[in-house]
Amino acid sequence: MYQQALLDTHERIKPFIHRTPVMTSQQLNEISGADIYFKCENFQRMGAFKMRGGANAVLNLTEAQKAKGVVTHSSGNFAQAVALSAKEVGIPAYIVMPSNSPAVKVAAVKGYGGQVTLCPPTLKDRMEYANRIVEEKGATLLHPFNQIEVVLGQGTAAIELLEEQPDLNILMAPVGGGGLSGGTALAAHYFGKNCITIGAEPFEVDDAWRSLQSGKIETNETINTIADGLRTTLGTVTFPILQEYLDSIIRVTEEEIVHAMRLIYERMKIIIEPSCAVPFAAVLREKEKFAGKKIGIILSGGNVDLGALPF
Amino acid sequence: MYQQALLDTHERIKPFIHRTPVMTSQQLNEISGADIYFKCENFQRMGAFKMRGGANAVLNLTEAQKAKGVVTHSSGNFAQAVALSAKEVGIPAYIVMPSNSPAVKVAAVKGYGGQVTLCPPTLKDRMEYANRIVEEKGATLLHPFNQIEVVLGQGTAAIELLEEQPDLNILMAPVGGGGLSGGTALAAHYFGKNCITIGAEPFEVDDAWRSLQSGKIETNETINTIADGLRTTLGTVTFPILQEYLDSIIRVTEEEIVHAMRLIYERMKIIIEPSCAVPFAAVLREKEKFAGKKIGIILSGGNVDLGALPF
Repeated sequence: MYQQALLDTHERIKPFIHRTPVMTSQQLNEISGADIYFKCENFQRMGAFKMRGGANAVLNLTEAQKAKGVVTHSSGNFAQAVALSAKEVGIPAYIVMPSNSPAVKVAAVKGYGGQVTLCPPTLKDRMEYANRIVEEKGATLLHPFNQIEVVLGQGTAAIELLEEQPDLNILMAPVGGGGLSGGTALAAHYFGKNCITIGAEPFEVDDAWRSLQSGKIETNETINTIADGLRTTLGTVTFPILQEYLDSIIRVTEEEIVHAMRLIYERMKIIIEPSCAVPFAAVLREKEKFAGKKIGIILSGGNVDLGALPF
Repeated sequence: MYQQALLDTHERIKPFIHRTPVMTSQQLNEISGADIYFKCENFQRMGAFKMRGGANAVLNLTEAQKAKGVVTHSSGNFAQAVALSAKEVGIPAYIVMPSNSPAVKVAAVKGYGGQVTLCPPTLKDRMEYANRIVEEKGATLLHPFNQIEVVLGQGTAAIELLEEQPDLNILMAPVGGGGLSGGTALAAHYFGKNCITIGAEPFEVDDAWRSLQSGKIETNETINTIADGLRTTLGTVTFPILQEYLDSIIRVTEEEIVHAMRLIYERMKIIIEPSCAVPFAAVLREKEKFAGKKIGIILSGGNVDLGALPF
């Protein structure tokens, strides 16, 4: 049911995104024993795959909605993605950010033309502030992952990867709120040739792994992971998609994440966020499962604090 | 006189090197006011442009020479380039490395099949050890830059960049021993359209800048620069090439190098050696000179100690 929607989404957002390169590393193939194709969304506009879903959410609005602008609450990549997408189509973007957001992130959102409102750093406050803007301005609230337009947008990275490598056996993505992993699983289902999708998640925030076990959306009691992009829990839109289209989730330790991240930095000479390293860490953890397989991994983004690298 | 030699070199080494990508950054173009094309030799095999010159030097040997192997003394990228090139053609590589070389570099050379001999960490000892191997084994000594085969090999990065962007106004490379800058200047001369080559060098090791002023090879009294690849002085082969084919050299401060390096890390999401950042630092230092120009910059390599980044 999403096949045509994915293709339409890809056509719609193409003028607003980069077609990112696919990279390989002979050394990482030797280390892992697999044949890995990395889709480099760290080279995407604003530095992450979130640009795809953000652009699609903005472009799907009616003209009447566009005129009144969009609002979201985010301290991270989705804030930048919405601000930049709104700027591209010439509409206002109201971004609610927690008051403890790093100044550099606030500056980045403002640099893309976003109108920033700072709020106390609780989810309750974020939502209240955002809802107030919806009421006052009539702007449309965009969700960073729990919205089908966003899921479809994130799936376009896998579409491009499958266009270049049609015979992948396995696609892999990190699992946060389920936007990227859900979109990737849909793309693999409709456009792969018997290609399954495997998610990867830190043990420290294994809510999605537990959700698939229990059949209901689970939460995390603590979020002690370096993979800061994966601390969120699944949503009502993304969870059923993962249940239907995701093969499984592999969990990894913090040490495995840092080790995989360092290998990618050292051998591929590219900068990625810790969250991106989680699927490659999963390949290294379960080598026998992936031996000789042709694998596509979505490297989700590259916005890191260079002063706080774990090595 | 080098036009055909450059083309022959490129054909000869093609099976042994990666054709590295050319990257652009809208943000860095906005910051600099120029239109910059980065040739990413940080993605080259063994992580640096040295693979080009190393491969060419090895491939130019006679069969009799090849049978006895090659020797070089180096603590850095050229050691790895020679070891890997020799491995590819199936001949012995004897690598003399100073005893204070980082263990990771020794391991990398051994990983490429190089036979490592450690020596006391002085240039005199390095040369004596290397010469002894020449005498004992009959192996051929390869020089990291002061050898025309090496210069021609390094020039092939610029050939590839000009194939993709034929109308560059300016090519830029950092100046160390003159291998990369000399090869780049030759390529611009023979294959560019009125394309000049500008070198870039730290003030702290501005021997090449002074050599062009004085007309003789100058040395450095101190080598206090983060750009460790540029601490060497010119050689008798490279100096005349720079005199004839290089337009000029721009010098930059250590602060300017670190600033340019950080911009490339943050905006382009790629890992480069400090030496690579020197040409971009020169563009930022003399913005008015480069405004609106179409510029090609050779990013020379990406082998850094991630634990010792300057930010």
